[in-house]
Amino acid sequence: MKIDILSLFPEMFDGVLQSSIIGKAAEKGAVSFRVTNFRDFTTNKHNKVDDYPFGGGAGMVLMPQPLFDAVDAVRSKQCAKPRIILTSPQGKPFKQRDAELLSKESGLIFICGHYEGFDERIPQHLATDEYSIGDFVMTGGELAAMAMIDSVVRLLPGVLGNDTSAVTDSFSTGLLEHPHYTRPADFRGMKVPDLLLSGNHEKIAEWRLKESLRRTYERRPDLLEGLCLTDQEEKWLRAWEKDSDNK
Amino acid sequence: MKIDILSLFPEMFDGVLQSSIIGKAAEKGAVSFRVTNFRDFTTNKHNKVDDYPFGGGAGMVLMPQPLFDAVDAVRSKQCAKPRIILTSPQGKPFKQRDAELLSKESGLIFICGHYEGFDERIPQHLATDEYSIGDFVMTGGELAAMAMIDSVVRLLPGVLGNDTSAVTDSFSTGLLEHPHYTRPADFRGMKVPDLLLSGNHEKIAEWRLKESLRRTYERRPDLLEGLCLTDQEEKWLRAWEKDSDNK
Repeated sequence: MKIDILSLFPEMFDGVLQSSIIGKAAEKGAVSFRVTNFRDFTTNKHNKVDDYPFGGGAGMVLMPQPLFDAVDAVRSKQCAKPRIILTSPQGKPFKQRDAELLSKESGLIFICGHYEGFDERIPQHLATDEYSIGDFVMTGGELAAMAMIDSVVRLLPGVLGNDTSAVTDSFSTGLLEHPHYTRPADFRGMKVPDLLLSGNHEKIAEWRLKESLRRTYERRPDLLEGLCLTDQEEKWLRAWEKDSDNK
Repeated sequence: MKIDILSLFPEMFDGVLQSSIIGKAAEKGAVSFRVTNFRDFTTNKHNKVDDYPFGGGAGMVLMPQPLFDAVDAVRSKQCAKPRIILTSPQGKPFKQRDAELLSKESGLIFICGHYEGFDERIPQHLATDEYSIGDFVMTGGELAAMAMIDSVVRLLPGVLGNDTSAVTDSFSTGLLEHPHYTRPADFRGMKVPDLLLSGNHEKIAEWRLKESLRRTYERRPDLLEGLCLTDQEEKWLRAWEKDSDNK
């Protein structure tokens, strides 16, 4: 996969794209990155990328010209027709399903905004997708792009050593993950549940499924909507609902 | 504000904490960062931070000892009692309101997970808060921590040049932001709406409010729940609902 990133702060990406699993994925050749400063594509004398908003108001708005020209330039060096992704708080909430879809593409271009936002002609006529990573505001789109890139690249074939890790992730099953415990069995008096030390794999699998469901019910009931639950799972849910009604 | 970050990949933070608005906030003294590798706090011979999960299964789990000891060490160097924040997909969804609350603290400690996740005693007995930035999975908690830090630091007094910028953000008003336009008025045949060039500030303010509401209605109707709308806003909404029923 070829990933182009357009940003006014290319230096932000150095540490992230070279470290950890993403850095190793690039070393292995599963992905290649190119970070381009779209300020280099300005045609005005002072290399301005932003200007005052029409109609007045606070903040500066990114002008269309530098970004349209920068996309034209980097797109011409990608083989297939890449998706062009804007990161902005106005975008569609980015979900695991979107990471899975994007991981099937051969090329992606990420455009990172700054200041007050993009001239509307950029999302309307240049980008193919506009995503938000959450209902909070950041100083720019760089960290949102990095988060999306991380979640996409880890799904590329051969990137995670253990293929089962990606399959049992939170959200891939529709539920939050069950609790994990490791050594020591007793740490400063805090103990691991006995069942996990029992060696009874059937009971352990049941405990994990139940805890995964319980946690989703307690923390993120919104994720349960639209899931197909088994009879046993429905029974657990009804018992918890009854419990909380009695409190 | 003092921010401590505990991570196995401290180099990931270099580019981000020194760049752009976050870097300037640190230069101005509004915030200071310290990134600590919690591997330095292991007491075992091979500096292992993770181990196999009790009960079996794929992936490795972060052990409690290195993180409990690392938190003890960095906490003792902070003045007030800092909040201790885990980033994980199982956490509470991080929202603008959470950024605002955290921006009032004098100290924060972020713990960045990796591998299959944390031993459950870490979220249960060490962390004060567990946040998720979205329903997607990343290779580690570093980018989630950076995203949260960015959204918190930009709210600190004096960090954003223009104070009104933070107030009119998406989510601060409860609605997505209206479209922005800047120069040129005609770019490759794509034109700015005439009204924005009219100089009629009353009409422009009304257009912006309406577009902000329309965009929220079309893209994120979930955000409208619980908002107190004016009669005019209710009237617009009813008209759009009628339109979409007729399609």
